[in-house]
Amino acid sequence: MTQPLRIAMIGAGFMGAAHSQGWRVAPRFFDLPLAPEMSVLVGRDIARTRAAADTWGWLESATDWREVIHRSDIDVVDIVTPGDSHAEIAIAALAAGKHVICEKPLANTVDEARRMAEAAAAASASGIRSMVGFTYRRLPATTFARDLVAAGRLGDIRQVRAEYLQDWLSDAEAPLTWRLQKDRAGSGALGDIGAHAVDLTEFMTGQRVTRVAGILETIVAERPVLASSSGLSGSAGTERGSVTVDDLALFTGRLESGALASFEASRFRLGRKNALRIEIAGSLGSLSFDLESPNELQFYDATAPSTEQGFRRILVTEPEHPYVAAWWPTGHMLGYEHGFSHQAKDFVEAVAAGTAATPSFADGLHVQEVLDAVARSSESEGVWTGVDADLAAARAADRAFAAS
Amino acid sequence: MTQPLRIAMIGAGFMGAAHSQGWRVAPRFFDLPLAPEMSVLVGRDIARTRAAADTWGWLESATDWREVIHRSDIDVVDIVTPGDSHAEIAIAALAAGKHVICEKPLANTVDEARRMAEAAAAASASGIRSMVGFTYRRLPATTFARDLVAAGRLGDIRQVRAEYLQDWLSDAEAPLTWRLQKDRAGSGALGDIGAHAVDLTEFMTGQRVTRVAGILETIVAERPVLASSSGLSGSAGTERGSVTVDDLALFTGRLESGALASFEASRFRLGRKNALRIEIAGSLGSLSFDLESPNELQFYDATAPSTEQGFRRILVTEPEHPYVAAWWPTGHMLGYEHGFSHQAKDFVEAVAAGTAATPSFADGLHVQEVLDAVARSSESEGVWTGVDADLAAARAADRAFAAS
Amino acid sequence: MTQPLRIAMIGAGFMGAAHSQGWRVAPRFFDLPLAPEMSVLVGRDIARTRAAADTWGWLESATDWREVIHRSDIDVVDIVTPGDSHAEIAIAALAAGKHVICEKPLANTVDEARRMAEAAAAASASGIRSMVGFTYRRLPATTFARDLVAAGRLGDIRQVRAEYLQDWLSDAEAPLTWRLQKDRAGSGALGDIGAHAVDLTEFMTGQRVTRVAGILETIVAERPVLASSSGLSGSAGTERGSVTVDDLALFTGRLESGALASFEASRFRLGRKNALRIEIAGSLGSLSFDLESPNELQFYDATAPSTEQGFRRILVTEPEHPYVAAWWPTGHMLGYEHGFSHQAKDFVEAVAAGTAATPSFADGLHVQEVLDAVARSSESEGVWTGVDADLAAARAADRAFAAS
Amino acid sequence: MTQPLRIAMIGAGFMGAAHSQGWRVAPRFFDLPLAPEMSVLVGRDIARTRAAADTWGWLESATDWREVIHRSDIDVVDIVTPGDSHAEIAIAALAAGKHVICEKPLANTVDEARRMAEAAAAASASGIRSMVGFTYRRLPATTFARDLVAAGRLGDIRQVRAEYLQDWLSDAEAPLTWRLQKDRAGSGALGDIGAHAVDLTEFMTGQRVTRVAGILETIVAERPVLASSSGLSGSAGTERGSVTVDDLALFTGRLESGALASFEASRFRLGRKNALRIEIAGSLGSLSFDLESPNELQFYDATAPSTEQGFRRILVTEPEHPYVAAWWPTGHMLGYEHGFSHQAKDFVEAVAAGTAATPSFADGLHVQEVLDAVARSSESEGVWTGVDADLAAARAADRAFAAS
Repeated sequence: MTQPLRIAMIGAGFMGAAHSQGWRVAPRFFDLPLAPEMSVLVGRDIARTRAAADTWGWLESATDWREVIHRSDIDVVDIVTPGDSHAEIAIAALAAGKHVICEKPLANTVDEARRMAEAAAAASASGIRSMVGFTYRRLPATTFARDLVAAGRLGDIRQVRAEYLQDWLSDAEAPLTWRLQKDRAGSGALGDIGAHAVDLTEFMTGQRVTRVAGILETIVAERPVLASSSGLSGSAGTERGSVTVDDLALFTGRLESGALASFEASRFRLGRKNALRIEIAGSLGSLSFDLESPNELQFYDATAPSTEQGFRRILVTEPEHPYVAAWWPTGHMLGYEHGFSHQAKDFVEAVAAGTAATPSFADGLHVQEVLDAVARSSESEGVWTGVDADLAAARAADRAFAAS
Repeated sequence: MTQPLRIAMIGAGFMGAAHSQGWRVAPRFFDLPLAPEMSVLVGRDIARTRAAADTWGWLESATDWREVIHRSDIDVVDIVTPGDSHAEIAIAALAAGKHVICEKPLANTVDEARRMAEAAAAASASGIRSMVGFTYRRLPATTFARDLVAAGRLGDIRQVRAEYLQDWLSDAEAPLTWRLQKDRAGSGALGDIGAHAVDLTEFMTGQRVTRVAGILETIVAERPVLASSSGLSGSAGTERGSVTVDDLALFTGRLESGALASFEASRFRLGRKNALRIEIAGSLGSLSFDLESPNELQFYDATAPSTEQGFRRILVTEPEHPYVAAWWPTGHMLGYEHGFSHQAKDFVEAVAAGTAATPSFADGLHVQEVLDAVARSSESEGVWTGVDADLAAARAADRAFAAS
Repeated sequence: MTQPLRIAMIGAGFMGAAHSQGWRVAPRFFDLPLAPEMSVLVGRDIARTRAAADTWGWLESATDWREVIHRSDIDVVDIVTPGDSHAEIAIAALAAGKHVICEKPLANTVDEARRMAEAAAAASASGIRSMVGFTYRRLPATTFARDLVAAGRLGDIRQVRAEYLQDWLSDAEAPLTWRLQKDRAGSGALGDIGAHAVDLTEFMTGQRVTRVAGILETIVAERPVLASSSGLSGSAGTERGSVTVDDLALFTGRLESGALASFEASRFRLGRKNALRIEIAGSLGSLSFDLESPNELQFYDATAPSTEQGFRRILVTEPEHPYVAAWWPTGHMLGYEHGFSHQAKDFVEAVAAGTAATPSFADGLHVQEVLDAVARSSESEGVWTGVDADLAAARAADRAFAAS
Repeated sequence: MTQPLRIAMIGAGFMGAAHSQGWRVAPRFFDLPLAPEMSVLVGRDIARTRAAADTWGWLESATDWREVIHRSDIDVVDIVTPGDSHAEIAIAALAAGKHVICEKPLANTVDEARRMAEAAAAASASGIRSMVGFTYRRLPATTFARDLVAAGRLGDIRQVRAEYLQDWLSDAEAPLTWRLQKDRAGSGALGDIGAHAVDLTEFMTGQRVTRVAGILETIVAERPVLASSSGLSGSAGTERGSVTVDDLALFTGRLESGALASFEASRFRLGRKNALRIEIAGSLGSLSFDLESPNELQFYDATAPSTEQGFRRILVTEPEHPYVAAWWPTGHMLGYEHGFSHQAKDFVEAVAAGTAATPSFADGLHVQEVLDAVARSSESEGVWTGVDADLAAARAADRAFAAS
């Protein structure tokens, strides 16, 4: 009989539905070493949390996360709250000896993220596992892309282009929600979707971004204030308020090997709905992926005869592809939520095996440091900026590199 | 408190996993009027059925479907066995007063299908619902396509091209499984995948196929006999046996309005994995769909200025699109199994509302009649053949039509 | 100094512009063994022919083709008149000892085509060259596709799908031009564009179509009579006349090897402008081509590892690809008229070398026979019909094949 | 009788073939007010120039451009030499009263370009026309895109992404040709192909780039020295030399309206052969173009109902599209060289009408200034840099902008 792995999920918003689906479905398709049990859902509003728990299939609901993370019948804390609460919850849960999955971004600030990474490192010594939720790593196509790179099929990485394009802010009259206010959201397109572009780049190439140069831009700077925010009720008034986060981020990064990667995160690319795209050009081959066609990978093999080279559209649905054998026959497609099942599977296996889960909190911290360096570059006329927080040292390093 | 709808599923193969996922997930995303309960899984082998029930989340397992369909604590019988047993189980379940979902094809023969349709019609008078499982109707893209046609956006339908292309038989040394033997599988590519092409055509256009002309072909006629079939064990021997079903079907159909539709079902289109494609050309617009890109619909609107016309790639992921609001935000993709959740939802709603479920057994019978007419045409040098079983009358009608 | 090859072109319509561009440009990019000289343009109306000759760059203009083909200073007769005059001109030109290029279709009837093929065969003994103008064979992508098939990269041909889709008749109020009248056009979509689909199939596979079954359809059967046809002037009246040619042809063919090919020629596929598409599925690989992307070839290589298989989009613009080295660097595209330059080049080379030019008049005759067999099948309830004109024998052969 | 316009072309390399084709073909398809006459081809080597003149169809050949530009029987000087000679020839030809077309880049340095623009402006007062050869503006798809933007169909421009991706340097053992040496080529990917991306952006949006920030990179810094350069003959030796130009340029630009555009020019994007791509996102619509599919334009119209929005693939081959009516029917494709015919046509018309030709030398100068600013930014740690040559003033302006 498989031992249970009892989960408490903190947070009951949109991502809660996705994580719930992950936990619910993973054990039905994968033969897991521990049996995930959807034990407690924790939210702020008791009635809404109870309703969500019923809908999503959690056995209990609760409102006090501090109490729940100390329950002896809980093994895993899964954090899907807004970013500004991640640090407090995760650090407390780790201290309570619970394995922790934390939705991305790891935190709203580098300092919080660093404290979380330190806590995770400390807890790791006691066999406590932690993971940050960059689920787009866990699609068959992206994992297979990583495998091709790791196997040397691309040769040396020469260039990367990574972009995450959405358009939901294109309407200039869309209201000023909390997501557009820096004090609550922490960041705009950069942290919300640019983070995925950075993580996917580092995951696929196996290299970290060490320096960046870029610009953050707010395309529509003022928007209608929601009536509820302005003390009125029922509808948006004529009052307008400032958007205090970026809705476009353009930056260039230097990878460890010296290769350049260029990045874009936009909420204004009208017509692009969820286009997380990455193209890696190497010396022997290239890869191209687009989340709007999530079951496909484009692969260019430059070792073929010159007359036969071309980007081939691989349907990543063969049983030999990562994760696929557990699902459907060749040519049957997976969707958005499958990444969450794969995350659940991989985390359960890491816990059972006592091995490190990836991406780690340290990985999540690093992504935050990259984003922070982009913001610093943007504030400094776009100058190249070290991901290392010591700006002066980083600049010196940049100059030395340029002179070499 | 929502009343339960207690389900027994007969059959524990591949389609059982898909139907289970449909029942499991539907109530988590849709607000259903009845609560589906995965009560009993029925299979032939007791141990394997019990294991499947555990994996898939059925409360009980059983081996005697006749007993189960008479249990008073069962409301719905969901049939996912091979086609040759559909008629017996479905007719008995309807007689026992159970609602029935039957996986396609409705049956292996027109006679069986006709008896099933008659039983369903009779049961309907007592409020018993039945449905055949053409789940590809229930993707947001295909349903939205149907809606556009129904709204007149294509004008008069001028032509249809429908094809279902796979390649899993391309290897001539692939073994002679039961699927390639007529006595057990009933039919080859025609019934297995051609049926979907016919159903999707009728669903989207709202018209039935009335006459057909075509050919059934077996491209690789002999294959290695499986060791287990030939009394040996461990591996395929040198013995070869005959493939007795088609692996390619090419046919043309006449729709009710007089428009022609051309069809192909192939298991030898190397490189095409699961390409159920349909393109409908009308007088005002055209539509194109490919199951290998299941979240997309190509729409050509000929009422736009001539310089601006073009097939537009609609991501059918907006909340206003069919089924989508229950799932994820714009641009987040659904996969193969979502059709089964939509089927579960629609069936539950029909049962609760006391309305007819579609596609009905009569729809399923009609598809079988079309396929049967193709087989008859193929045996008669490809001559145009009425879907109506009375071949002589149909031929007379064809001649009259040709002369008009 | 390169010897001249003096050309007379008979016909001054749309195809005349294309052939002129072919003759004009070919010697500027290819190093030809003879120098094509655009000597005489022959048309019906003297003033318009002279204007066309000036525009297109012919040295002289004339109106009496019979005289021109006997001129001693003419080496080649290039026929671009409507199909009903091809036989008379070509046979006379061959008799006069001139090399002949004849635009497709070779003729409007099989009888005419047969007489032309016989005349070409006879003239060949005297070193006279002839060619029918299926220029789509002469794109780098289609020629390279043929080369891949011939090199065995597809293994055994299992299936072919060939279609030529246009939409210029979609408007039901488009007028009844001569192209829609059988006595003048000979045929509709079948002969005009279906001929290309048949030729490309035979060219790429290296196999002939031996039997067919199909249907010809007239989707819009009555159209407004042009004012000029009805004795009025200035605009279309309210009079309507019958369309006497097909605007849709659907047929299936049996290739020499036994493989099936399915064909469609349509002028009603709304949104498809010039989609001559062919997909060949073999035992080791597949190819797909679409004239709307004329510089691309999709190639699927099933000998690659299963995880890496996919249709690859080859840009057929490498110097090693057929015809390409003469033109522009990699990635620079060719257009419609380049096929005519390639035709000119290949014809000049055949004349200079004294070798047979392809496609021959016999090839053109064969295509006409295939189309004729489709028409006979359509008139016979769609029954399988031998391309051989002896219907009874062909049917016997069909039955024997079916029984084998 | 149409008056002749007598042309002398200076330069006999690859671009000479393209310009020759433009002059040769344009009057055959367009009804021009003056008749271009291919009078004199000027090259360095007399024998090779004479051969090229024969091949391309120039009446005379010559080696002394200074003499030719003063001939009274020459009206137009078309310059297709390497960039370092453009200024001297163009300024002299303008001074001699000749109309001038100069291939891009206008010059190798901003100073040269500025002197050319001044000379063109001065000559313009005497009715002398000049144009720089950004022919990619003159494809039907790019011109139609400009028209859609100008008509307001995109609303406000929010963002631009422009990239020109090639891969011909991917082989690290490709030799060190003159194109990779700064003293001869002036610049690498930036000037060669990045110039097109900048020009197309400015052409389509109707806005100039005012500030830039970016980096120039040399991915493979040492390459084999060609034997001929090192005094040996026959093959490449073991000697290696430094690549002194960029092979990758990544930069961001600020448009006049304030919108950001991001750019990439790369010769290392393995698998991309000639991918000049531009995507413009506006408030009401978006456009996307890729030179690897040169007859297509993707248009997204956000004023359509939300369920029907999608990028539509417009085949820009309708007679109502720019330039198309002169060529072939709908759906028949144009190729690379058609841009040169359109350039010839537009230039001839401007000369005949006495109107300004575009893009002007001033436009070409501006592009050079943008590229120069990118180089300066790259040398200054990527800081935002004004296109205006006065760096201090530009930086002040940047700071003021950032503070606003």
